[in-house]
Amino acid sequence: MGRPRKSLLDQKRIAATALEIVDETGDFTMPELARRLGVQTASLYHHVDGRSGVVELLRARIGEEMPEDYSPDGQHWETALRELGRLYRASFAAHPHLVPLLTGQPVRAPKVLVVYERIVTLMESAGFPLSMIMTAFTAFENFLIGSALDLAAPEVMWEIPDDIQTPRLAAALAAQPGGRSRADQAFEFGLDLLIDGYRRVLDSTARSEG
Amino acid sequence: MGRPRKSLLDQKRIAATALEIVDETGDFTMPELARRLGVQTASLYHHVDGRSGVVELLRARIGEEMPEDYSPDGQHWETALRELGRLYRASFAAHPHLVPLLTGQPVRAPKVLVVYERIVTLMESAGFPLSMIMTAFTAFENFLIGSALDLAAPEVMWEIPDDIQTPRLAAALAAQPGGRSRADQAFEFGLDLLIDGYRRVLDSTARSEG
Repeated sequence: MGRPRKSLLDQKRIAATALEIVDETGDFTMPELARRLGVQTASLYHHVDGRSGVVELLRARIGEEMPEDYSPDGQHWETALRELGRLYRASFAAHPHLVPLLTGQPVRAPKVLVVYERIVTLMESAGFPLSMIMTAFTAFENFLIGSALDLAAPEVMWEIPDDIQTPRLAAALAAQPGGRSRADQAFEFGLDLLIDGYRRVLDSTARSEG
Repeated sequence: MGRPRKSLLDQKRIAATALEIVDETGDFTMPELARRLGVQTASLYHHVDGRSGVVELLRARIGEEMPEDYSPDGQHWETALRELGRLYRASFAAHPHLVPLLTGQPVRAPKVLVVYERIVTLMESAGFPLSMIMTAFTAFENFLIGSALDLAAPEVMWEIPDDIQTPRLAAALAAQPGGRSRADQAFEFGLDLLIDGYRRVLDSTARSEG
């Protein structure tokens, strides 16, 4: 209604529509995205740097689902990593199909790079050796990504058909918490193990330097 | 050439074709799968229990990519979990788009349930309390799934544009190993932390029972 079409095609709308397609179909193509936006594919390229540019918009958008005031500055590293872990897991769990797209190309989104800068600064201040920081944080992220997919998974994740004999699995399943607690408890268990491990690494680094 | 069409439509061929489509497009639909197999969608349903049946075929197929003789029986739990972890990561890394499909529905594939039965039996023999086994193994799987996606990720995973100031991130990236070692080192680091954590849990369980 009187609004020129081109104002409708901004990066925010492109990201929102691409995310819709990914959530529904598992991936997106540029022609699909253009069709759903009601524009020519060529027009899309005036607004984004190709398909990988759209994926970076999606990466930034997922980052925005974290509270805007999230900042690890001034927090103890353990508190900051636990809080980041919980937010990260929840944001990715809402869009499981997006996960392989984001892990499949390099991080270039400025807003997201700034979050990594803060994390590296935090870990460096805590005493992690510089050469270990990306390795240690990537291990943590790997756990968060898997935990996000598990949070998006069904509450009952193993269904044993009547004709299959797996009695110890059945007993272990009966002994685990039900509902959403299944995934939450596994996440908290792994989070504790990893944070404990980081503390030990830090302690032994401090001892060898002291 | 004289071979009746229906012999061409077995579960093995259905799974192989579905995996091709998932690898190429990120997901699959039953009409797409039928089209690529050259059959009517209705014919597919004579061979598989719907879309979720196809996903279970894919789950079993990924399981088959592990060496057939993989069996944790008789191994020390640490050795068995480390070996399983390495095989699991490599198998999933070859098909990153399959990951959200497999985590998105309950495990029903008999061959895969039998692997879980072996893992539960192994962990129970090692002394893990029954009520902790699924929780502890799910935390481990979450890490493996994320690590598989990281193995499938580009070797250079962060690209800082010239106009972005993230000096500590740049320093941390320069200090991490390059090439495939980037992902391998993060995996081995997290694997060590988790296995160490399990050992501590086992030790404290043994002490509290002893």
